[in-house]
Order: sequence, then structure tokens, then C-alpha cells
Amino acid sequence: MLSTLPFTINALREAYAAGTRPADVIDEIFARLEAVGDPGIFIHLRDRDDLLAEAQGLGAYDPELPLWGIPYAAKDNIDVAGIKTTAGCPAYAYTPERDAFVVSRLRAAGALMIGKTNLDQFATGLVGVRTPYGAPLNAVDPAIVPGGSSGGSGVIVGHGIVSFSLGTDTAGSGRVPAALNNIVGLKPTLGALSASGVVPACRTLDTVSIFALTVDDAYAAFAVARGYDATDAYSKPLTPEELTEPATPLRLGIPNAGSIAFFGDTVQQAAFERDVAALEARGAVIEPLDFEPLYAIARMLYEGAWVAERFTVIADLLATNPDAVHPVTRRIIAHAESMSAADAFTGIYRLAELKRAADPILRGLDLLCVPTVPTFYTVADLEADPVTPNSNLGTYTNFVNLLDMCGIAVPTAPRSDGRPGSVTLLAGAGQDALVAAVARGFEMNCPRIMGATDHAVPAPAPLPVATPDTIEIAVCG
Amino acid sequence: MLSTLPFTINALREAYAAGTRPADVIDEIFARLEAVGDPGIFIHLRDRDDLLAEAQGLGAYDPELPLWGIPYAAKDNIDVAGIKTTAGCPAYAYTPERDAFVVSRLRAAGALMIGKTNLDQFATGLVGVRTPYGAPLNAVDPAIVPGGSSGGSGVIVGHGIVSFSLGTDTAGSGRVPAALNNIVGLKPTLGALSASGVVPACRTLDTVSIFALTVDDAYAAFAVARGYDATDAYSKPLTPEELTEPATPLRLGIPNAGSIAFFGDTVQQAAFERDVAALEARGAVIEPLDFEPLYAIARMLYEGAWVAERFTVIADLLATNPDAVHPVTRRIIAHAESMSAADAFTGIYRLAELKRAADPILRGLDLLCVPTVPTFYTVADLEADPVTPNSNLGTYTNFVNLLDMCGIAVPTAPRSDGRPGSVTLLAGAGQDALVAAVARGFEMNCPRIMGATDHAVPAPAPLPVATPDTIEIAVCG
Repeated sequence: MLSTLPFTINALREAYAAGTRPADVIDEIFARLEAVGDPGIFIHLRDRDDLLAEAQGLGAYDPELPLWGIPYAAKDNIDVAGIKTTAGCPAYAYTPERDAFVVSRLRAAGALMIGKTNLDQFATGLVGVRTPYGAPLNAVDPAIVPGGSSGGSGVIVGHGIVSFSLGTDTAGSGRVPAALNNIVGLKPTLGALSASGVVPACRTLDTVSIFALTVDDAYAAFAVARGYDATDAYSKPLTPEELTEPATPLRLGIPNAGSIAFFGDTVQQAAFERDVAALEARGAVIEPLDFEPLYAIARMLYEGAWVAERFTVIADLLATNPDAVHPVTRRIIAHAESMSAADAFTGIYRLAELKRAADPILRGLDLLCVPTVPTFYTVADLEADPVTPNSNLGTYTNFVNLLDMCGIAVPTAPRSDGRPGSVTLLAGAGQDALVAAVARGFEMNCPRIMGATDHAVPAPAPLPVATPDTIEIAVCG
Repeated sequence: MLSTLPFTINALREAYAAGTRPADVIDEIFARLEAVGDPGIFIHLRDRDDLLAEAQGLGAYDPELPLWGIPYAAKDNIDVAGIKTTAGCPAYAYTPERDAFVVSRLRAAGALMIGKTNLDQFATGLVGVRTPYGAPLNAVDPAIVPGGSSGGSGVIVGHGIVSFSLGTDTAGSGRVPAALNNIVGLKPTLGALSASGVVPACRTLDTVSIFALTVDDAYAAFAVARGYDATDAYSKPLTPEELTEPATPLRLGIPNAGSIAFFGDTVQQAAFERDVAALEARGAVIEPLDFEPLYAIARMLYEGAWVAERFTVIADLLATNPDAVHPVTRRIIAHAESMSAADAFTGIYRLAELKRAADPILRGLDLLCVPTVPTFYTVADLEADPVTPNSNLGTYTNFVNLLDMCGIAVPTAPRSDGRPGSVTLLAGAGQDALVAAVARGFEMNCPRIMGATDHAVPAPAPLPVATPDTIEIAVCG
């Protein structure tokens, strides 16, 4: 029965191999969408007939195509040919002729893009409610904000309606919605996923990100979408790596007692302590660290000159049609108008100095482990104060791209009050495979469901042990 | 006879080993200074008695100290404890308590700092005449500009009064004076020489540089001064490398006929063609390339937002005492006042795109070879037009630090009119040793004198052949 099938990539591939047709999956998608009944998830949901026609074009099931018939959604700041890109702002919208680089990779692998998802306008926010299109509802608990800026992309995966979705992540937009919707959020190394055809937020700090129900699914979509793109000046020629069992023991840094913040949420604190203990039980060496130097880096993102990057994107719009911009977003970004080029370079120097100061903290560690969010906020909280809860949600996400780290937000067991648990594992640029391999550990023997579905998270298959393919041999003389 | 000794490091070390005392060398320095009689070289020449006392403190000759008793000069934007640093601007001056990082390294190796040299104010210029202290005279031909911004440091080495000097280089300030004074200018990889205790020009693009009479002397001083400095956020942990014979054949890119510029100086053109032919005769494979993408990068330095970096250094001074700044310098730097933070990031994006566009040009090449300067300008030329000749002098230098390349300006045989020949060899970051090894080739069988001295350039000793100390071995399965 397709209606009881979890839409993980494996489950769908097994169903396709057994004769299920993409048309059946598309019917089931629309049935699930109707059952959820949330008009805020998509800014543009594709026409059912168009989707069926595209699915028809896939021909017979081809197991060589890693995403054949796999449904996904794309945040509406990522171009899909022929569909309007709004970035959450009707006045900004344009209809691209070409797919974004990542979309074209997914299309070539057989994936089916079912719609463009709602977002905090111009990807500015971590809450998901700064949108003129009517915010999506959190998949797990509609009182809670959906998270942002990739709100719709988080919610649609949380409902199990697609196998994965594309988000973007500058300050945490690919991780916060994962924590709030009980799903995985993979935030790659900067430059691993091309930004061609993506509306920038802070171009020097942006990355496309992936939401999925499991770490393996997120990594599978990442492995397809990644690749060097000579037309994106910030794309990097990184070496793709298969997932392998991590060498132990890993040294994991966590925020120490003096620098960890839960804003009074003792339930979240207990869940994080439990999750760290689980890592320790799996053999990790835990090192509590003063995170203040990382928070100082985080503050550069909005207090420093980087907000001017966002300004470059909408300067024309602000000049000609300022009311087209969401008032909170406008207030944040217009702040850049008062900043000089000298301020920008002063900020760049300050960041370099803060990074240097953080060097000794990060040296010798394999990973960092942080709570993905320090606590939960309701939609009502945001109505009362649109900024403070948003800032607090970024406590453990804002510094990451400024340090060019990669990371995965991964659900852990539910908290004692039933809300989703989530930690984010972080490592240096290029360590995406290591992060994913460690994140999978939280899916072993884990008493949780995926997103807001009825389905238990499947235990991941054992990983191969890494075999070094080259070794260095010292030759004396 | 000390008065006929060339002040190369080797010659001085041999003299010291044979019983010459530093006091004798100091006497000879002052005799040579008096003979030259140029009050524009130094902003601060050290007191002879102070120098003699410092030399006394060195004790007996210690051949283990690589620069024991070796005299050098430092550009007056580099701190020497207890001596005023002016950066060419009396109103900006301060007296540092501590040596710059590089100065302390040289001091520990036994070097004797004899004075602080004149410069284009705030290291802004390539001509050496933008100074309120009275410009130094070119050592080879007083009608020609001394070159800048490290003018005094170039001239003092050109006269053979010190073995080497420190300059700085952002746009070419460590290379142009080398070409104009018939000496070597080593411009290291960014971050190899600490900027602690150095007045910044463009902090993201600056490096300390070395002038010397020979490539080996420049590299020897570089090897002493270099080293990771955790207190300089732009210092890099690079691996020092010994000079070894380069593997052949090397692929060298040169500007092609359509993109090379000599501003009508056919003598310079002939000299460059001769120098390229010499490289080819030594086994290099020459690849003429369209340099326009590199020139586009160069234009970012003054047309883009980077001038705002210079503005950050003197913003307070411009606000409180604008007349203290040289009028040409003020006009150039004050331009930054009109630039926004958004302009800065737009420039940063543009640079990233231009670098990406230059990738295919540089790929597969070991080195670039360019004329250090396209032609020569007189002091009178600069009086008539203080900007255009300065810009033209940067034709082959301005793009280098924006691309994080390292380079050496090395004298070649004299031009047909007797003026000094010079080419600059450039390579990617970290390739300082390769550049030096190739530059030494121009000192083999070279019919030229060093600087404005009477001494022929000594033929460099053969280099050891590189022996790889590690090899990669593929292990299958």
C-alpha cells in the first residue's frame, strides 16, 4: 500500500522495482498534501498533469539513476526552468529559463521537482514566518514556528510528502527547520553545491542545503547535486567522498557549562546532555569548550558588514519599491545603507582576527556537537517580538558558515516532553562525509519517528571501513 | 680593502671570518653614504655611536647567526623599537616600543638595522616621490624616479650601502624600485612574512618584501624573516623550502603580442624579448597568453573598493588633519569615502569572478614572466602628471597580490641604452623557492653590475637537485 509507505529513497526505489509507477507516487503526494491541508508550504505547487507528464517522460524504471522517480521540493530562491522564482517577494519575481545547477543535476538523476517552497523573504530569518505568502505550519506542532528561512522545505519533508528538499543556508536556514520539524538538515561545505541559479543572501557565505528524512537520503541527494561549476565563482573543486565508518576515537568539542545557552529550556538541556552521553557511549572523547569566541564570530553576521551582502541583492528594489519588502526584512537589510566600504573591510579584518582567536579552540578536534536550536518558539512569540527569538534560534548556527565548517542537523530521540530532539555535528570544510557518518549514529536504536510521520526511523546499514588508497612513505637521503 | 668590497652577505661574512669588525663596516657605510650624499634616502638614519654600540653587543663573529653583522635598512612603515615610524607622514608618526615581527627575527639573526627609509606616503604609489621628506634619487640615474612606494629601500640597496632592505608590497612597491635601481626585489607569498608592526596599506593584500643585490641574498633574508605569527590574522603557516634546481622543462606564460604594453619603449620591448629568449635557451617552454583577464583584476585595486582598505588606516587623520596627507595620496584615498559596504562586497564578488575567468589562463603553467616595468619615467614626468606614469608602472605588478601569487623582480643584462633590464617571475602562493631558483638563472654569465655599484654580479653557486622526501604509493583494494 503506497499510502502507508514512508517516502525514503530506499523505500520508493524498492516500490518502483516492484512495479509501482511514478504516477502512483504523484497521486499519493497529492493525497498527502490534501490530508495535511497547509496552503503555506508551497509558493508554487506544480500542476498534477504537468508532473504526470514529466514522470511519463522518465520511461521505465532505471535503477542506474540514483533518484529515478524520487519526489523533492525546492526552496523558492532556487531556479527551476519555467517556474517563477520569488525569493518570497512577489515584486522581485522572475521566471528563469534554466534550472539552477543543482536542479539540473537532480533532474538528470531522475528526481521529480513537485513545487517551490515558502521561505523567509530573501532567505533572511530563521523562523519561517517572514513571508507575504502565509507562513507554513510546523509539521510536528503547528503552534511552533516552522523554522526558516527554508520553512516550506523543512515542513514538506517533515510531513513525509517528499523524500528530500532543497533549502539554502547562510546563518542556519538549512538546520533550524530540521530541528523544528524532526528531520535531517545537511549543510554542505561552502562551494560544494553550486550557487548558479540561486538568489543570493550573503554570497560569500551561502550554500544550498538538503533536508531529508534520514542522513543517508540527505547524503544521497547531496552526492547527486554536488559538483564543480566553473560558472559560479564560489564553487570549489572538492573531492566527493563515500561514507565510511569513522576511525575512533573521535574528539568532539561541545559548549561548556559557562557558554551553553538554552534560554531557560531545561528540557532541551537535558536532551542535549543525553545526546552527548550517547556520543560518548559510542566512543567519542568529549571536550567541553568555551564557545564565546565562536559567538563573537556569529555576531559579525548581522552586527558586522555582511548584511551589506544582502543589501546588494535588493538595493534596486529598496530604492524603487520599498514597500514590496517585508517590514522586518527591510529593517534588517536597510541597516546596510549606513555602512561604508571601510566598515566592510574593518569587519573583514575583525573576522580574520576572531577566526585566528578561535584556532586554538578548534585545533585537535574532529567535530563540534551543538544543540541545533537552544529552545523552541511559538508563532505567538514571534508576533510579540519578531527579532529576539529569531536571534536566539541562531545561537548554534550563525558562526558556522563564517568559519566555513560543514554540518548536519540530525534528529535524536524525542525530548522528555515529546518535542523533537536534534543536535548538529560540525567539522571543517570538506569533512561532509565524516559528519554524515557520525550523524547516522543517532539513527541506530533510536526510538523516534521520522518528521511528523508514523514511521520509525530505519536503522542505517553498516558502513564500510575506510581503506586508505594512498599512503605516504618517507624516503630518507 | 673594505672600501672596494661589495656588500653582499657572502662577501661580508668572508670579511668577518677574516677579522673585519662590524665597526669597520659601519665606518664604511657612513663613508659610502657621504659619497652618495642623498638626504632623501632615509627618514631616520641611526646615530653612528648607537650603531657601533649595537655592533659591539654582537660580541665575537658567530658564523651560526646567518646575518651576523649584516647591515640592512627598513622602510619607514615597519616598526623598529624606539625609532619613530612615520609611514611618510609626520602627523601620523608614533614611536613603537617593540620591533615588527620581521625586524625581531632579523635582529635575532645578528642583522644591523641602520635606518628607516623614505617611501611614498602610506605606501601608496609606485614612484617614490609622493613624500614630504624630499624624495630619494634613483641610484642608477637621478633623472629617473626612484620607484616606490619602497623608494628609499630600493635606492640604498642600489648604492650597495647595505646588503638588503625591507620594503612592503601591495601593488608592486617591492618590485618597481628593484627594476629602477638594478637590484633584486623579492615579493613573498602573502602571509609568509608577518605584518605585525607594519603600517597597513591594504591589509588583505600587503606583504613585507626584500630588496637585495642578489637573489641568494634576498632569499637568505627572507628565510630568516619568515615564520608563522599567531598574532597576525593574515600570517600563514607555510612550509619553508630550500632552493633546489628546478625540474625542467618549466612552462612559462608571458603576455602575448596583443596584450603586452611598453608605452612606446621599444628598447624595453627588445630587452624583454631577449630575456624571454634566454629563458627559452635554458629550457623553458614559453606560452604567450592574453593578459587582459589579469589586467582586469589589476584594475580592481584602485577602481574597486580596495582603496577603502587604505582609507581605514588614515580615516581619523583625514577627518582631523587632512592637510597632513600628501595631496596626491589624499585624492586617491579619499575616493573611498563615497564607497558603501555594498560596493565593497560587489567588488569582492567581481574579483572572485575575474579570478575564476583567469583560472584557465594560469592552469598548467609553472610561472609567469613579465617585464617588471613597461618603461621608465623621469621625475619631471611625474611633476607634469603625478598619476598616469604611476599607473603605467603598475602594469605588470598590480594584479599579483590580488591573485596571491609570489614573485621576484630580477635584474637582467642592461638594455641596449644601458638602463637596467628587469623581469619579474611569478608563481602561485607558496612557490617562493621555485621563483628564486629560476630568477638565479639571470645571474649566470650575466654581463651586469649590481645596482649602481662597480661590482659585477657574482655567479650563483649550483643548486642541489630536489630529492622528493615523500612519494605517494597507490594501494589497491
